[in-house]
Amino acid sequence: MKKGRKNSITDVAGITVGHQTIKNEEFQTGVTAIFPHQGQLFKEKLAAAVHVANGFGKSVGLLQVEELGMLETPILLTNTFAVGTAMNALFRYSINRNKEIGDSAGTVNPLVFECNDGEINNIRGMAITEKDVEIAMQSAKSDFEEGAVGAGTGMRCYQLKGGIGSASRILTFNGKEYTLGCLVLTNYGQLKDLELAGYPIGVDIAEYYKKSAVKEKGSVITILATDIPLSSRQLKRISKRATVGITKTGAFVGSDSGEITLAFSTHQKVPSSSDAVSSYQILNEEHIDELFRAVTDMVNEAVLHSLIKSRATTTKNGQIVHNLQQCLQELQKITLDKKYQEVLDYLQYY
Amino acid sequence: MKKGRKNSITDVAGITVGHQTIKNEEFQTGVTAIFPHQGQLFKEKLAAAVHVANGFGKSVGLLQVEELGMLETPILLTNTFAVGTAMNALFRYSINRNKEIGDSAGTVNPLVFECNDGEINNIRGMAITEKDVEIAMQSAKSDFEEGAVGAGTGMRCYQLKGGIGSASRILTFNGKEYTLGCLVLTNYGQLKDLELAGYPIGVDIAEYYKKSAVKEKGSVITILATDIPLSSRQLKRISKRATVGITKTGAFVGSDSGEITLAFSTHQKVPSSSDAVSSYQILNEEHIDELFRAVTDMVNEAVLHSLIKSRATTTKNGQIVHNLQQCLQELQKITLDKKYQEVLDYLQYY
Amino acid sequence: MKKGRKNSITDVAGITVGHQTIKNEEFQTGVTAIFPHQGQLFKEKLAAAVHVANGFGKSVGLLQVEELGMLETPILLTNTFAVGTAMNALFRYSINRNKEIGDSAGTVNPLVFECNDGEINNIRGMAITEKDVEIAMQSAKSDFEEGAVGAGTGMRCYQLKGGIGSASRILTFNGKEYTLGCLVLTNYGQLKDLELAGYPIGVDIAEYYKKSAVKEKGSVITILATDIPLSSRQLKRISKRATVGITKTGAFVGSDSGEITLAFSTHQKVPSSSDAVSSYQILNEEHIDELFRAVTDMVNEAVLHSLIKSRATTTKNGQIVHNLQQCLQELQKITLDKKYQEVLDYLQYY
Amino acid sequence: MKKGRKNSITDVAGITVGHQTIKNEEFQTGVTAIFPHQGQLFKEKLAAAVHVANGFGKSVGLLQVEELGMLETPILLTNTFAVGTAMNALFRYSINRNKEIGDSAGTVNPLVFECNDGEINNIRGMAITEKDVEIAMQSAKSDFEEGAVGAGTGMRCYQLKGGIGSASRILTFNGKEYTLGCLVLTNYGQLKDLELAGYPIGVDIAEYYKKSAVKEKGSVITILATDIPLSSRQLKRISKRATVGITKTGAFVGSDSGEITLAFSTHQKVPSSSDAVSSYQILNEEHIDELFRAVTDMVNEAVLHSLIKSRATTTKNGQIVHNLQQCLQELQKITLDKKYQEVLDYLQYY
Repeated sequence: MKKGRKNSITDVAGITVGHQTIKNEEFQTGVTAIFPHQGQLFKEKLAAAVHVANGFGKSVGLLQVEELGMLETPILLTNTFAVGTAMNALFRYSINRNKEIGDSAGTVNPLVFECNDGEINNIRGMAITEKDVEIAMQSAKSDFEEGAVGAGTGMRCYQLKGGIGSASRILTFNGKEYTLGCLVLTNYGQLKDLELAGYPIGVDIAEYYKKSAVKEKGSVITILATDIPLSSRQLKRISKRATVGITKTGAFVGSDSGEITLAFSTHQKVPSSSDAVSSYQILNEEHIDELFRAVTDMVNEAVLHSLIKSRATTTKNGQIVHNLQQCLQELQKITLDKKYQEVLDYLQYY
Repeated sequence: MKKGRKNSITDVAGITVGHQTIKNEEFQTGVTAIFPHQGQLFKEKLAAAVHVANGFGKSVGLLQVEELGMLETPILLTNTFAVGTAMNALFRYSINRNKEIGDSAGTVNPLVFECNDGEINNIRGMAITEKDVEIAMQSAKSDFEEGAVGAGTGMRCYQLKGGIGSASRILTFNGKEYTLGCLVLTNYGQLKDLELAGYPIGVDIAEYYKKSAVKEKGSVITILATDIPLSSRQLKRISKRATVGITKTGAFVGSDSGEITLAFSTHQKVPSSSDAVSSYQILNEEHIDELFRAVTDMVNEAVLHSLIKSRATTTKNGQIVHNLQQCLQELQKITLDKKYQEVLDYLQYY
Repeated sequence: MKKGRKNSITDVAGITVGHQTIKNEEFQTGVTAIFPHQGQLFKEKLAAAVHVANGFGKSVGLLQVEELGMLETPILLTNTFAVGTAMNALFRYSINRNKEIGDSAGTVNPLVFECNDGEINNIRGMAITEKDVEIAMQSAKSDFEEGAVGAGTGMRCYQLKGGIGSASRILTFNGKEYTLGCLVLTNYGQLKDLELAGYPIGVDIAEYYKKSAVKEKGSVITILATDIPLSSRQLKRISKRATVGITKTGAFVGSDSGEITLAFSTHQKVPSSSDAVSSYQILNEEHIDELFRAVTDMVNEAVLHSLIKSRATTTKNGQIVHNLQQCLQELQKITLDKKYQEVLDYLQYY
Repeated sequence: MKKGRKNSITDVAGITVGHQTIKNEEFQTGVTAIFPHQGQLFKEKLAAAVHVANGFGKSVGLLQVEELGMLETPILLTNTFAVGTAMNALFRYSINRNKEIGDSAGTVNPLVFECNDGEINNIRGMAITEKDVEIAMQSAKSDFEEGAVGAGTGMRCYQLKGGIGSASRILTFNGKEYTLGCLVLTNYGQLKDLELAGYPIGVDIAEYYKKSAVKEKGSVITILATDIPLSSRQLKRISKRATVGITKTGAFVGSDSGEITLAFSTHQKVPSSSDAVSSYQILNEEHIDELFRAVTDMVNEAVLHSLIKSRATTTKNGQIVHNLQQCLQELQKITLDKKYQEVLDYLQYY
């Protein structure tokens, strides 16, 4: 499948991503902001949908997306205990830009997604401020960093260092090219379940580094974006396939791992005109399998990116959280087993 | 149907309710806190369920209640733009009481429900602080005020003054008495739809006071509590009947009116022991119709209480928001039509 | 609110309804068929949605409507134990008209809704044949009978004779008139809960006719149809308001009462062309409250029609199932209480 | 993970499975019946739940399982156009054994699941009779055949021959052994997506046998059974992990592939006594990850069994539908590439 130019969610025209990273002796955490387009989101809403694969999570804003099938704010990712602060920041952001909100126009629905980074970060310290959220939003741009940055700073994936990953695919319908992109925040999975290129290498890594199994307390958030014209029902359908991509590396959606996907289409603004009836464009359902396949493949790749691009760090208790490739290189060096090189080559492809 | 001693949610043993009311020239808003029991909620969780009749709303915590069928924090009600601040307060409240939260034990799921009080209150001012939330929690007691207090301070119901209402019912199974209670935060409905005792008196009030129809931007939150042993599936079923009680006065669940119910049972704590298997008690399904009937009747009464007990006020734009009974008394005085007296007598019953 | 010319679901252009009534010493049951349009439904599918207010029921086809947001067969109503036979008939109907079904084109999703008429009808006898279903379909026309006919033959509503009821409303958007219609199959409610025109007359009727409370084993099915352009998400939203109309007469959605609504829009066919992207028309959400209000009012009226138009009969055990108006006339004659005349006048309006 | 003695759903005590296979010049289809226990199911109901991963399907009975969290009939699997007939057979089966059904006790909720076997079988011929369903039920026993038998007779999986597969796992809680079993009916997936032991061997097979990609019109049904005490909420949670097992072989839940899971626990009968309150046993949620992991692993194995045990056949149009191992052996013989032997060894393990 053809990838986008940057192999990133920002291959979908108009999308920008910003980070605020907090990394010091006490805290390793942050905020990531995604702008679905560069206009006034409250006035130019987009079709959207959510899917909850596992509801052990504290993300907010899903209720209204489910009911109305649209989004009206930037999307924030952060740690669990920063969700209230991120909501506050989005309320203020929206109020400041729209004098009718909370007055003539009802309120606004902030979208904040979270994972628990409490293993690496002192999450109890509630370090993130509204100012941090604003900085993440202000720094949004088309070229953004992946890995242990922004909301990904303190996340673990398969007990290795995880964080932000992104990828994209190009699809062609009736001779016209469309883009599908995703961004994941990975904080899920147990090391012993990790499989890559058909090898259960997680077991080897766990053994070598003496990592015992842990009770999963993570989560994984997936944001899907596209310029293909899709209804909220169709966006919900593609959201459901994110889980297939997420579990391709061996995880099984653990009980305490909140797994949530948000999908939106930038193709058209939800009309707010005085006309009672508006025209929409929608993809014919018989083409949707191509999107399902692309979502599966792309989300799997974004997960790999989040692992590959996240540098090792230490937990708040001083334990090393390794980078995947460094583990593989070490095992390759020690054992001379060529399967580790095969896996490294496989990852190189991504 | 037999009512509880106080005809209040606090007839269910262990429940307390507290308010913080903010009422000054600029703001008419507040917070209401409900404690499901007086122990450590994070360690002694309760079976719970939610039902979303209309998802145009920003309440938080529903996701995890849906997945795990339990609650683990006090319940907060407030205005829409205070939800983030209320979350922050609940995070801090829980962290301070449980050193394992965000450390050995995962995070915690705050439950905050909201309505938009922006017609009466300057909601854009985001007046509520974490301190206000703490005061609401600290002031929780068994005897609490209903009407235009706490979260109810700035709410409107059928374009009249609404707010907090409560009621309870006693049910007997196998010779044993159980209690079912509810608390509503009413901020929904159009005046022209209001029907009481079979009379469409909303139309009369609207005409007399020259109240034109408004686009509904409200919501109504219902909290159901009981000491009957119910599974989360059964709690969800009783939650769905709240809407029948809410619409008995003539409303139709308007598009912009977020209507959400939370139900919980205090009968037993969710076990967190080392035993793999625990015993629960559950009501046999064939008795559930008695609860459905009681919920419908009780929620209708709580709505009436919220109207009856809320004193008139003025909106932020200086318009009067009337008290229901005062309107009826005025109409009775002017028209001498005895139907208004009939409705007043009917309300007297509640 | 303005009603359609016939005040019937067939006011929506293209819709026809047919009945097959089985009424003899052993059986009082039947089938009702609704054609959403007069073309090839499998090739010209319509946007559709379902809402399950209470899932104690055996209706079929909802799964796929929920997933794909469309319908592709006529809609059948019948008794619970005839659902399999009705499915068979719809499979054969569709296969015979489309040689690609089950071959090049996948299968087809039959829509069959049911209530349990076992109190009046010997439902265990499984009297309905595929031939009966075919006759119901063949007899479909624009002018159809309401009351104790077709699927309504053996139904009870509030322990009185219920059955088929219909109603319609005209709405105007941008100067253009649209039609909203509904058909209900009523088999729900306990007599003591029946309220009309503000009077709890069900209690009086129960007392006079010595009807003791029964465990509800009924159901109510609502079919909503419109030529307003609505997405499946919007159709689902209007479906949810049917319950408000159904409970206006005093019921509370009993545990064993399956309550299901199907809604569809005839405005446009779901495209199956070779084009990847198609244009749709959709109502702007800010106008949807007008539909919600209309649905509530119209469904309530259709319920009343089902009561008014259903002649008294006897149960399989020889007990009389009364007609509502005859009860009211009798009570009026005996008691001379003018409230019964008021209720009769109120019903006259419908 | 430890497997059960027979590595089959019937390792869960009390469960039996029966088939009726129809295989002649015109038809290749059948029925599979699963008995959750050997008592009177209508009087001794079991806790149950369903999960719909993709609702493009015509299975029946899910609505009521979702509402009441229990099952009350045997479970049938068959082809899509036999669902009505299977419902009829289950209605009659239940009526004949319970004279109160449809009389004093309400009706009964038949559970019938389906896949479309129309590629191999002349599904339009609607070959299955109620007699066939009865034979499947009568032949139920603890030792049953897997592969191209019963409902699996005409199914395809990854464009190879699929059908019935089963597997089981043993879990230990508090020193006590429990059993978890599953049965799958596989009719899903595209050959080019098939991955085994890390090799994308589907692409090789497709190339060698010149199998072009097809529009998926399949489905996959998973039945999960256990003697672990689980609430319907917990059963729903484990149902959701079936998809992880199903997609382990490379599929992505295609648009037209209805994917549905039913789970039930045999641990205790749902009480129908006169007591209002009953005691249940429930697994503590913190142990549920062990079940999730087991479901994933076991469902993957059952899918492999369905492929391994299904002999090759020809479609109704005369094309060969191959057996997986025969394909691998042929490729191994022709290419001498040892990866095919590796995959064969991998399958040998199952």
